Amino acid sequence: MNQSIRIIGIDPGLRQTGWGIIDASGNSLTFVASGTIKTNAKAELANRLVTLYAGIEDVLRQQDPAEAAIESTFVNRDGSATLKLGQARGVALLAPARAGLVVSEYAPNAVKKSVVGTGHGDKRQIQMMVKTLLPKAIFETEHAADALAIAICHAHMRSAATLANRVSSAL
Amino acid sequence: MNQSIRIIGIDPGLRQTGWGIIDASGNSLTFVASGTIKTNAKAELANRLVTLYAGIEDVLRQQDPAEAAIESTFVNRDGSATLKLGQARGVALLAPARAGLVVSEYAPNAVKKSVVGTGHGDKRQIQMMVKTLLPKAIFETEHAADALAIAICHAHMRSAATLANRVSSAL
Repeated sequence: MNQSIRIIGIDPGLRQTGWGIIDASGNSLTFVASGTIKTNAKAELANRLVTLYAGIEDVLRQQDPAEAAIESTFVNRDGSATLKLGQARGVALLAPARAGLVVSEYAPNAVKKSVVGTGHGDKRQIQMMVKTLLPKAIFETEHAADALAIAICHAHMRSAATLANRVSSAL
Repeated sequence: MNQSIRIIGIDPGLRQTGWGIIDASGNSLTFVASGTIKTNAKAELANRLVTLYAGIEDVLRQQDPAEAAIESTFVNRDGSATLKLGQARGVALLAPARAGLVVSEYAPNAVKKSVVGTGHGDKRQIQMMVKTLLPKAIFETEHAADALAIAICHAHMRSAATLANRVSSAL
């Protein structure tokens, strides 16, 4: 029942995309790796998307996660920022889906609630809680920390779903 | 000098992405093919993006264009629509770029100006002019017609650029 499952969390962005890998076994979580894929702001958009795709593909190949989780993008009032984020997000969703992984999406406040306990944690609180939940975690950017938080959120959600299934089949 | 070059135009959208292929030889343009890639609105977003990517990849493999052109997305006030379009657009830019094609981007009014003669043509005017410029053109959706218009715009722009180069090297 408590088979270990490897999860990748992705925090997409055109300039910087964070990723974080954890192993989840029941309620026990273990840090595996994290990183940030950066693209050159001076390069052509299409080439930046190729760099982003190749970066995620490399991580999937090296770490071999079984499930992926990504944050639902915050839609802000700046349409051009939303468009940029959307383009990066499309590529970040595509890479694990093409590799055959199921990709789950979580709203930013669901991720915060799962990690900090409320839907309104700030960046620093999230980073502190990621460090508490994954004592061995190393992250060089806030995007990598956010990606680990997304992976943790997915681990909690799937563990709750498994428990619910177990309870309902025992009834 | 008037070597024929095959161009793909892409009009990206999450629900329907239009594509159009033309051959350009100097000022002479020939219709090759057009189509529409549709995704299931009830499917998961990541799977819809996989369908879109695979559809464009198939067209590239079958038609083997040398250059790609895509419309710069119109950023509207509806952030969630912009995000959806952005996600589709990211994938539509990625597919030709990963296949090694240079991808040019044109603003919607540049495309209209190139095809209709003004930056304010409506859908029907664009379709009529596509039919005039490419008499053999067949398109089943307005997205496919728009994609052909984008390919025509790129053919005009690259032909103007070649002419400018020729003039400046003759001076």
